[in-house]
Amino acid sequence: MPAYATNMRMKFPIMALVLEIITIILFALFVVYDDGKSDDPHDKASNKSDSKEPMPMDLYPMFQDVHVMIFIGFGFLMTFLKRYGFSSVGINLLLAAFGLQWGLLMQGFLHMTHGKIKINIFKIINADFSTATVLISFGAVLGKTSPVQLLIMTILEISIFSINEHLVAEVLGASDVGASMIIHAYGAYFGLAVARVLYRPGLRNGHDNEGSVYHSDMFAMIGTVFLWMFWPSFNSAIAEPGYAQLTAVVNTYLSLAACVLSAYAVSSLVEHKGKLDMVHIQNATLAGGVAVGTCADMNIGPFGAMLIGFVAGIVSTLGFKYLTPILSSHLGIQDTCGVHNLHGMPGILGGLAGIVAVALGKKEGGNAAMQAAALASSLGFALVGGAITGLIIKLPFWGQPPDQNCYDDSLYWEVPAEEEENEESLAHADHSKNKAEV
Amino acid sequence: MPAYATNMRMKFPIMALVLEIITIILFALFVVYDDGKSDDPHDKASNKSDSKEPMPMDLYPMFQDVHVMIFIGFGFLMTFLKRYGFSSVGINLLLAAFGLQWGLLMQGFLHMTHGKIKINIFKIINADFSTATVLISFGAVLGKTSPVQLLIMTILEISIFSINEHLVAEVLGASDVGASMIIHAYGAYFGLAVARVLYRPGLRNGHDNEGSVYHSDMFAMIGTVFLWMFWPSFNSAIAEPGYAQLTAVVNTYLSLAACVLSAYAVSSLVEHKGKLDMVHIQNATLAGGVAVGTCADMNIGPFGAMLIGFVAGIVSTLGFKYLTPILSSHLGIQDTCGVHNLHGMPGILGGLAGIVAVALGKKEGGNAAMQAAALASSLGFALVGGAITGLIIKLPFWGQPPDQNCYDDSLYWEVPAEEEENEESLAHADHSKNKAEV
Amino acid sequence: MPAYATNMRMKFPIMALVLEIITIILFALFVVYDDGKSDDPHDKASNKSDSKEPMPMDLYPMFQDVHVMIFIGFGFLMTFLKRYGFSSVGINLLLAAFGLQWGLLMQGFLHMTHGKIKINIFKIINADFSTATVLISFGAVLGKTSPVQLLIMTILEISIFSINEHLVAEVLGASDVGASMIIHAYGAYFGLAVARVLYRPGLRNGHDNEGSVYHSDMFAMIGTVFLWMFWPSFNSAIAEPGYAQLTAVVNTYLSLAACVLSAYAVSSLVEHKGKLDMVHIQNATLAGGVAVGTCADMNIGPFGAMLIGFVAGIVSTLGFKYLTPILSSHLGIQDTCGVHNLHGMPGILGGLAGIVAVALGKKEGGNAAMQAAALASSLGFALVGGAITGLIIKLPFWGQPPDQNCYDDSLYWEVPAEEEENEESLAHADHSKNKAEV
Repeated sequence: MPAYATNMRMKFPIMALVLEIITIILFALFVVYDDGKSDDPHDKASNKSDSKEPMPMDLYPMFQDVHVMIFIGFGFLMTFLKRYGFSSVGINLLLAAFGLQWGLLMQGFLHMTHGKIKINIFKIINADFSTATVLISFGAVLGKTSPVQLLIMTILEISIFSINEHLVAEVLGASDVGASMIIHAYGAYFGLAVARVLYRPGLRNGHDNEGSVYHSDMFAMIGTVFLWMFWPSFNSAIAEPGYAQLTAVVNTYLSLAACVLSAYAVSSLVEHKGKLDMVHIQNATLAGGVAVGTCADMNIGPFGAMLIGFVAGIVSTLGFKYLTPILSSHLGIQDTCGVHNLHGMPGILGGLAGIVAVALGKKEGGNAAMQAAALASSLGFALVGGAITGLIIKLPFWGQPPDQNCYDDSLYWEVPAEEEENEESLAHADHSKNKAEV
Repeated sequence: MPAYATNMRMKFPIMALVLEIITIILFALFVVYDDGKSDDPHDKASNKSDSKEPMPMDLYPMFQDVHVMIFIGFGFLMTFLKRYGFSSVGINLLLAAFGLQWGLLMQGFLHMTHGKIKINIFKIINADFSTATVLISFGAVLGKTSPVQLLIMTILEISIFSINEHLVAEVLGASDVGASMIIHAYGAYFGLAVARVLYRPGLRNGHDNEGSVYHSDMFAMIGTVFLWMFWPSFNSAIAEPGYAQLTAVVNTYLSLAACVLSAYAVSSLVEHKGKLDMVHIQNATLAGGVAVGTCADMNIGPFGAMLIGFVAGIVSTLGFKYLTPILSSHLGIQDTCGVHNLHGMPGILGGLAGIVAVALGKKEGGNAAMQAAALASSLGFALVGGAITGLIIKLPFWGQPPDQNCYDDSLYWEVPAEEEENEESLAHADHSKNKAEV
Repeated sequence: MPAYATNMRMKFPIMALVLEIITIILFALFVVYDDGKSDDPHDKASNKSDSKEPMPMDLYPMFQDVHVMIFIGFGFLMTFLKRYGFSSVGINLLLAAFGLQWGLLMQGFLHMTHGKIKINIFKIINADFSTATVLISFGAVLGKTSPVQLLIMTILEISIFSINEHLVAEVLGASDVGASMIIHAYGAYFGLAVARVLYRPGLRNGHDNEGSVYHSDMFAMIGTVFLWMFWPSFNSAIAEPGYAQLTAVVNTYLSLAACVLSAYAVSSLVEHKGKLDMVHIQNATLAGGVAVGTCADMNIGPFGAMLIGFVAGIVSTLGFKYLTPILSSHLGIQDTCGVHNLHGMPGILGGLAGIVAVALGKKEGGNAAMQAAALASSLGFALVGGAITGLIIKLPFWGQPPDQNCYDDSLYWEVPAEEEENEESLAHADHSKNKAEV
């Protein structure tokens, strides 16, 4: 395969080391601890409307919940592929670890205090959030990109996210507490744009490694359940402390619960003999968390949150069943994890629900036009940013895997011995079987 | 198999959708956010004896620990079966997601404020608790019931639980902070009564799918360890804030630690060549958390908690070894997960320990007779409620699996391709092997 | 095998039961609940410099994070071996459950109030910490020791730890908030000393069971990621509440993030075709948490923390690649999990960084000489204590496994049927394959 230089020695290590060294230098120049003596009007952590004086560690349990979603949730959700578990959880760790540093810098540069970025729990929650966009996009191109390509995507996607986030929150003054628009819709359409640019005709008819095996589906459920449980923390972490935060928790908790019922029902309705499909269960049960994000801290009523989740579960499951095949066959968008169904459509649904809720006066001081502008901005930055990023990482020297090695850990990882051996001997063990079919 | 209509298309989706729509309507009519202006004397969250004014999110980290126990703990604990992991963790999610909504309504109807149910963290912890009863009973009938049957069980079990809980806590005024009686004993004997009614003579001699494989036992340990770690939160979540809550944490932590030693010791003592048995380790190590539940916030002394845990570990392990086979062969009670050993006997032990502790004056204002009445009430509601529920779900149109398809995901789930294929080809891969033996 | 009496019946159960009974008696004599009326000057929980009055449950979320690291983190990190998962997570649970009780007593005896040990959240965090030393040492001797040997090691290692901890913190007054020296370096060199004494020439050329399989590496990543995420809680749990605690969180979070990049880069740099090695990723990504421990609450600057993590990731990965084989072949130290690379060298690095930081005035009231003495003390107690422990558990009646049964669960556990069967039939299933190669 002369056209593909997938050997990562030198290219990947040099890139990782240089990026980290640059990052450390930027931290040395710009980043200091928050000492609580902030006079930054943008620093919400010290600017609460609540009566109780905030303590520096108040948000820490929330932060840890979000942290678990980023590293266990996203990481294991993607381990459903039979031979791509090392990459799913391992590259997820790599991208998120770099992304949170880059996010601290990019978001920090837009909120400096006397030329310094003051780091506190609120800021590291936002840094985790910024990595979520990359991990969503990662799902769209999973198995078809090299670690080097993904690091480049991380840099670009987080930089563009920070601009859009600043625009939405500070300039437009739109409300998006659970980030349906600025994280989920943005991350999904950014990833889909990248996937479109990287379209592989050779995978038009699928790939033998693209499916799951029994235990890989079980590992993926670890990701699903942790995401499902901690989503109320994701949607409420940066809400106003007190009753607004409680509202965000309750709305998200109920939306997710309702979403489970509709996702299971529709999965059974559309599948062969009324069986449930693991892909739907792993993903569509989470759509309620995405879709209620923008409205999470609004006074939409518990049943309003449930309605949003109920619809999201239906839309997401139908998307997996009917839309994903069409995107792949007709539009050249090969969306490995179906992020369009979990983050894309539910993210837009969340944005629309936010517009309606604000128009109905469910958010004090909200402005429906600004909400609509925020949604449009998020989609615009995503599509343009993703397309540009796709063109850059399509350049032929970033180690992109050839078609036949897609969805295969052994290209970038040392895989345990019995696996390698089986490749040659046509042995009958669990994993080798799948390889033998290639 | 004409006698069995296990095809879930229509039956399951319609039931799930209708249930969720009814639930949303009831929420629209009755449920509102807690705005902190509660004057409900039953609302403990705003009625604390503690000096510090409570904040709406104070209990949130406790809630998340309980949430993890419900969805990861119970879900993965049941994945030990070799071919039933999708159902264990997936149906667990379905039942708990519906159950928490139903529990909010049922418990809420008994504690309304001006005709409304005010939802807050305290209430969603109790909703999670109510689902625990269903998940315990699920363990008794695991692998032998359809999702439709289980949804019906969820509705009935939670409704009856709410009545018994109200009776025990409000009418009898009994103490059961960690719910040894009202959750564990109730859930176990409810499930055993259902299992008795659903007795299958055809499974008298076991079933090929009933065992574990190496990796399914590893998945189950994820459930075990998360339950074990967060049990102090379960037993203290609704304790009086302050030192009573600390006492509940410390007692549970120590009871569980002591229980591990006795469970390991007895497992080795009763097994072939002194080996340890994974079934005992996965379950009996948790009996200390169950048994110390009623006394958790009482002044029983750290060593008292350890004694309870120590005894619970012994009783539970001996139950798995000697009692479960007898229940199955002589009493027609086929208890898949051994919930009698983990929740049943330790729950009764907890109730008895509570009677003794209260009689010894370890709980201010306690009344030993009321404790005994609470235990009797919990067992009575469980056995009668479970028997009635069993009779209802035994009706022949709920899609109950035939004997030969018990403990098998492929009846209700799309199982990854290589598995299906192996059924025919007698392939030698890990999972197919077990199938081939059928 | 007449020289080995590995049958655990009687020996193990009697030891476990007797230990637990003695422990309960000691608790009955010495341990009481903390009632908040402490006048113990050593009780930091009630002696905070912060203005806000501490509540008894303030540290509880931190405790639970540490708890997850001990039971899920350490437990699953060691499941990478293909046939030793039951022991890794199961014996980890056993040792930690006993160790935390023993640690409460040993540390408590050195900090009594009117002849009693007052148990609170601060104390149970420290008890969890004391077990971490044992679990680190466990990694060095994993697969080559019996549960009886390991229980003896637990007793001795925690007792000696408590003495060294008291010496370092109270007598020397050294700073080690994240315990680079007193837990990580101590635990690692204690374990290496034990491993040296238990040197097995028969395993000089490796063992067929010593490697991983695909799914065992996935289970290990659960451990890695939970350790990685919650390490900020480990390093900050006992820091001064307020901004010092925030500093410890931020430093650890950043050190770990930087460490991931350098570990990945070096792994790719030294491996065949630039591939990543799961052993490095599972372990070296955590070295930044170890190495920043001593300095975590010091004013080293965010970039200082990142530098420490960056170097730790490089040192750790190089250690796995080049040093571990040398230790094994030339020094007779067979370090199963490579604890020298994850805890040993990074622990020393942390101690040295602490000396430098204190010398540079980054810690108010610090004394560089005392820091150096603390490091020397920790290493001295570890090496001497480990050697003595090794000699005791080398006595021939503790059930040590013979060479050919090392790294094999089936010696001490009932392993699911298909596994046993395969041993004889040379079947082709996943796990048996590896055995067949033996």
